[in-house]
Amino acid sequence: MASQPHPLLPPADGTLGYVRIGDVLLDSGVLLPQVTIALQCWGTLNADASNVVLIEHALTGDSHVVGPKDALHPTPGWWPGMVGPGCPIDTDRWFVICTNTLGGCRGTTGPSSLHPDGHYWGARFPAISIRDMVRAEAQLADLLGIRRFAAVIGGSMGGARALEWMIMYPQRMAAAGVLAVGPRASADQIGWQTTQILAITADPAWQQGGYHGTGREPTMGLGIARRIAHLSYRSEQELDRRFSNRPAPGEDPIGEDLSMQGRYAVQSYLDHQASKLIARFDACCYVLLTDALNRHDIGRDRGGLHHVLKNCTVPAVICAVDTDRLYPLRQIEEIAEHLPYCDGVDIITSEKGHDGFLAEADQTAEILRKTMALAEADEQVRF
Amino acid sequence: MASQPHPLLPPADGTLGYVRIGDVLLDSGVLLPQVTIALQCWGTLNADASNVVLIEHALTGDSHVVGPKDALHPTPGWWPGMVGPGCPIDTDRWFVICTNTLGGCRGTTGPSSLHPDGHYWGARFPAISIRDMVRAEAQLADLLGIRRFAAVIGGSMGGARALEWMIMYPQRMAAAGVLAVGPRASADQIGWQTTQILAITADPAWQQGGYHGTGREPTMGLGIARRIAHLSYRSEQELDRRFSNRPAPGEDPIGEDLSMQGRYAVQSYLDHQASKLIARFDACCYVLLTDALNRHDIGRDRGGLHHVLKNCTVPAVICAVDTDRLYPLRQIEEIAEHLPYCDGVDIITSEKGHDGFLAEADQTAEILRKTMALAEADEQVRF
Repeated sequence: MASQPHPLLPPADGTLGYVRIGDVLLDSGVLLPQVTIALQCWGTLNADASNVVLIEHALTGDSHVVGPKDALHPTPGWWPGMVGPGCPIDTDRWFVICTNTLGGCRGTTGPSSLHPDGHYWGARFPAISIRDMVRAEAQLADLLGIRRFAAVIGGSMGGARALEWMIMYPQRMAAAGVLAVGPRASADQIGWQTTQILAITADPAWQQGGYHGTGREPTMGLGIARRIAHLSYRSEQELDRRFSNRPAPGEDPIGEDLSMQGRYAVQSYLDHQASKLIARFDACCYVLLTDALNRHDIGRDRGGLHHVLKNCTVPAVICAVDTDRLYPLRQIEEIAEHLPYCDGVDIITSEKGHDGFLAEADQTAEILRKTMALAEADEQVRF
Repeated sequence: MASQPHPLLPPADGTLGYVRIGDVLLDSGVLLPQVTIALQCWGTLNADASNVVLIEHALTGDSHVVGPKDALHPTPGWWPGMVGPGCPIDTDRWFVICTNTLGGCRGTTGPSSLHPDGHYWGARFPAISIRDMVRAEAQLADLLGIRRFAAVIGGSMGGARALEWMIMYPQRMAAAGVLAVGPRASADQIGWQTTQILAITADPAWQQGGYHGTGREPTMGLGIARRIAHLSYRSEQELDRRFSNRPAPGEDPIGEDLSMQGRYAVQSYLDHQASKLIARFDACCYVLLTDALNRHDIGRDRGGLHHVLKNCTVPAVICAVDTDRLYPLRQIEEIAEHLPYCDGVDIITSEKGHDGFLAEADQTAEILRKTMALAEADEQVRF
């Protein structure tokens, strides 16, 4: 068979494509109409579509796993070196799909998309859960003729989606790679996340979530949210080693008045992180996805998370970063301990905290190779 | 001699008193005019004023160390059981003073006080350092005829003040008790603290810091700042044990829309913490004192913190809380390791994080007893 048997699939060279998956019935009972999923693909799909790997991005990620920054992609690929010929997810062997999540703002239907009524969705967009994101992806897989993924892999919010795939569609995947996420939102995560949401919705430019098209956006609130989030993504040791209490170059934060003109180096760094996000991300989408993370709980309405994990038959690699203060080790151990086909938590050793799963390329590559070996072993059993 | 030889001292029964200490020359070179310090005292001052213990409060604390909530004191004493007859700081033996810090909003001159021009100071109030707070207290001690304190004791921002006392006036104190603070602001602390300041100053009600008397206050911003701060004061384990991802009673945070009407239990708890602070604390004072914490660095312009600590002759008890994520153990160890008269960090074991020095009464009492034993030993050498 040729390399593109499925006309619905975009070119397998990482070009951004779009698939209309129709309406999606949400956990809440709301029917979300006319959903489009944006995606990118790499590699060659085999005849029975059995070599497909689904990669799930984190909160502010998108479908651009690898590749340079360009007109459609405001940032370079977020997992450089992980997907490609000879890479840990080897596109000589595997066909890789990465979707932009339901509710996203990089091509998939979300709050910054147009409602069927012709106006922006904004905060009229219904609340969604991690399960809804996965349900939308299963609809996409149906349309693409993918009955079963060789692996579903993701970190942070992408890890939450990979986990939900394991629970919702265990028969549709051979292996899972789950990095840097817990089995449910903890009180601490909900505390930080609701505070971030409040920073955005308290911004007068929020306008009850109806700011799209008004020329005013809650960028100040989104920037505050990003500063909080970014601090939670790094470790205090790394921040202090890099910035200590030094002033930003040429600035004086210890002057005689409270005008706050002069900044500390770490403050300038956080300002930069905030500005970058504001330039590329929609505030209402940030609220929607952060709220979805608050809802994350693989055990809810299913008899509890231990029960769910014990009965999950998907072989999985479960990975934590040792200095992660957003998703601390104890939460990730709880997943690994209860899964029957998991040999314990794989730990990335890093000074970088939660972001270690993005920043520690060699160790992350090892995690992905281990995950693909599980997928490979499954292939050998089946064929 | 009688029990009140110093007419400037307020009654020694915890009644709030005020002392005009005149102008204070700040680190920045600015002369802050006509400063009043609010204070409370307990116990009986001895003839040579050699039995005085100075207690330093934390960021949003005040002079009300012990005692009930009343008209002048919006909260009960913040260190219940620590000061009084037979208590760890025994008022049968020691005369205890607690000041409201320079720049505070509970009686001492600060941003919510009137400027000599008759209008509120607001953000015209000059930036201050921890050293300026201590300098003002030394002026107060001069006026009260206290040449040397038996001990200076504090936690968090109060600990930073106690540390600066050790460096600036080692000859004026016999012992120090420093709890839950590092030798300088770390990048992480500055990151969280500048984000809090931004949340307040980005609130439209901030009005360039000139909101006093306008009828509008940046309460939303102050509330966001407090939520961030409060999360940093607790541990993720304790928060999760108490709140997990439960809804607030009678509320539904996982409904079908993004109206954010329903709250999680931890969200409701943070809302409550924010409301309580808004009701009792001035936002501009919060900005000023948080900025002072950013400036905290006992080594600045003194040859570095190791040099300063090695040459500090004050016997000290240095204490950390094992789960403190705001002032982690490694920072506090750095103090203890370099002080010549310190036998290592005393560790409070607590699930409660930074707040452990306020919440773990038995262990904190032990720290204070150990500090007062150092003061007692000094007395025995001198007399």
